[in-house]
Amino acid sequence: MTIPPHSEETSLLIPLGPRSYRLHIGAGLVDRAGVLVAPLLKQKRVFVISDSHVAPLYLERLQFSLSQENINSSYIILPSGEQTKSFTILEKLLDILLAARCERRTALVALGGGVIGDLTGFAAAILLRGIDIIQIPTTLLAQVDSAIGGKTGLNTTYGKNLIGAFYQPKIVIVDITTLATLPVREIRAGYAEVVKYSCIDSQSFFNWLEIHGLQLLEGDISARHYAVRMSCAAKARLVSDDERENGPRALLNLGHTFGHALEVETGFGAELRHGEAVSVGMVLAFDLSVRLGLCPAAEAERLRSHLTAVGLPVTIRQVLALPPEPARLLAHMARDKKVHDGRMTFVLARGIGRSFLNRTVEKDQVLAVLADSAGI
Amino acid sequence: MTIPPHSEETSLLIPLGPRSYRLHIGAGLVDRAGVLVAPLLKQKRVFVISDSHVAPLYLERLQFSLSQENINSSYIILPSGEQTKSFTILEKLLDILLAARCERRTALVALGGGVIGDLTGFAAAILLRGIDIIQIPTTLLAQVDSAIGGKTGLNTTYGKNLIGAFYQPKIVIVDITTLATLPVREIRAGYAEVVKYSCIDSQSFFNWLEIHGLQLLEGDISARHYAVRMSCAAKARLVSDDERENGPRALLNLGHTFGHALEVETGFGAELRHGEAVSVGMVLAFDLSVRLGLCPAAEAERLRSHLTAVGLPVTIRQVLALPPEPARLLAHMARDKKVHDGRMTFVLARGIGRSFLNRTVEKDQVLAVLADSAGI
Repeated sequence: MTIPPHSEETSLLIPLGPRSYRLHIGAGLVDRAGVLVAPLLKQKRVFVISDSHVAPLYLERLQFSLSQENINSSYIILPSGEQTKSFTILEKLLDILLAARCERRTALVALGGGVIGDLTGFAAAILLRGIDIIQIPTTLLAQVDSAIGGKTGLNTTYGKNLIGAFYQPKIVIVDITTLATLPVREIRAGYAEVVKYSCIDSQSFFNWLEIHGLQLLEGDISARHYAVRMSCAAKARLVSDDERENGPRALLNLGHTFGHALEVETGFGAELRHGEAVSVGMVLAFDLSVRLGLCPAAEAERLRSHLTAVGLPVTIRQVLALPPEPARLLAHMARDKKVHDGRMTFVLARGIGRSFLNRTVEKDQVLAVLADSAGI
Repeated sequence: MTIPPHSEETSLLIPLGPRSYRLHIGAGLVDRAGVLVAPLLKQKRVFVISDSHVAPLYLERLQFSLSQENINSSYIILPSGEQTKSFTILEKLLDILLAARCERRTALVALGGGVIGDLTGFAAAILLRGIDIIQIPTTLLAQVDSAIGGKTGLNTTYGKNLIGAFYQPKIVIVDITTLATLPVREIRAGYAEVVKYSCIDSQSFFNWLEIHGLQLLEGDISARHYAVRMSCAAKARLVSDDERENGPRALLNLGHTFGHALEVETGFGAELRHGEAVSVGMVLAFDLSVRLGLCPAAEAERLRSHLTAVGLPVTIRQVLALPPEPARLLAHMARDKKVHDGRMTFVLARGIGRSFLNRTVEKDQVLAVLADSAGI
């Protein structure tokens, strides 16, 4: 498996009929945003929504690029952090946009990580019953996951993303050089989602990650380009098969049902990153699969080893100083959106690259896996 | 034109591809709701959302009917009135539903007027990124207008319905006997929307209304059935041609751009009903058409006469004790969702039943019509 030269720019189509759109992946695309976006706009006017971390780094370059195509841009800068994905901030954002006479043909541009992308996407979905949204994700997590597929939303006190809409962007612009300014912990957290794609259905991608993972984390731009492209292609495939998440798309939740429970416990705070929760969650999903006799123990071990090698957590004990009772975590999991008639859907695995859905897991088995990981 | 016997039950299909649904119109359908709804539910569990006026009248009958089909129903009663269409109430409603473990397969049932239907529809659109919604409209306005077509939303300080989603119900159940408990002012306000359908594209329906309108207002159930059916069929036709309101659906806004401005002025309060605002708005749209030389003055006069005959207002002066400056009303109109590149879209008419869209109206002409109607 070779790594392509980093000068390459990749364009992927997300085929969703009338809602199809393109994903552009490359280096320095923030400076080409104007050219990419101009043909798609209904009006040469956009609002860029960003946060206090990202705006100082890329907003000026983005606005310059837009101005080169005679696109008038205003900006709104929100506080950074998961707390921004709230009803309070949403209502403020919508008020500012309405006060500034945002119209149905005006587009929003989300410049930032998953929080900015999800919140802005949701605002676009409900403002004037739907205006266009352009995604420019600047974190690894957003580039390989949240900016693709049209899931938008908010957190509530009952859990993450429990309010939201399926709403597709007009284009996603992935500039991999924006990853250079990310703290290593952020890159690592995003990397957990990259590993997830390999675990879902591509053992060969996992093999590649075992060899090149550290290289990617240390900043190798070609490795980043390749891994982002592979991840986006995997997500695009699963999403276009199942836009509204009734079937195969649910495989993307590998590690997420467990992970969300951990995040509820930490109140979605900075102490536990989403990707770190997913890292622990994937190991729990594999451990559960082993316990149910569905997966060889060696496969779970291989996943655990790789995640540990790149510095990601693999047990509840590592991420929660005072691990809660397993029953409490299970109660959080039971509030998940994927609950049907009171039964939970789990993404299990027969091995790396061989994940599948299961709705018949007994509570006791889940509790046992949680207890082991919590060291109780 | 004959009036059908009122024992008849009509079923209309709203053809929207995978989002198609049926509209049932008849007498006593609240008691048949269980049978109509049962085959459509993904789970035999629903939440009925109603308000403090409607719940005492129909909730018990509805729950009994659902229980006959083994459908488990809980209910949430919201305050009645336009103020309920707010972010604050929406957030509370969503919190209650999440706390009660509403799942993706659970359905909401909106039992009430336009406020309950719009708010519940929007809650269903964004809860867990979309759950099923069943509409049981109990006011004339909701039966002929807001419950059909999938428009859901909230009011903001900048105007009505500026936040929302296009989200189709699974079924609409129109029980015309619920109109019997409505105050006459409510019936009359809803009647303005009935007149609107005739003005859009059916002079023959307008002819019928001139003869039977008072009969309908006074409670004749056959006249009500016929007028509701004609109105629903007209709306269904315009909506299915244009689900997301890019073209012909905009004709449904006849009288609404003017009307909304009046409602902003009264803060959406009880002093001015939506239908009353539409009544004045339609006359203003016809007056503007006459002023532009597009419509014979006699046609505007005929509309004015009929609305007056049934007790609906036809001038700004009648509905606003202290009419505001025309420029102020124009500013409200300019905030409408239908504004494109700063230009307003007007629904004008060449006569009764001959409406069309126009985007070239000059501000001065609009100001003159507003000034006349305000008596300034």
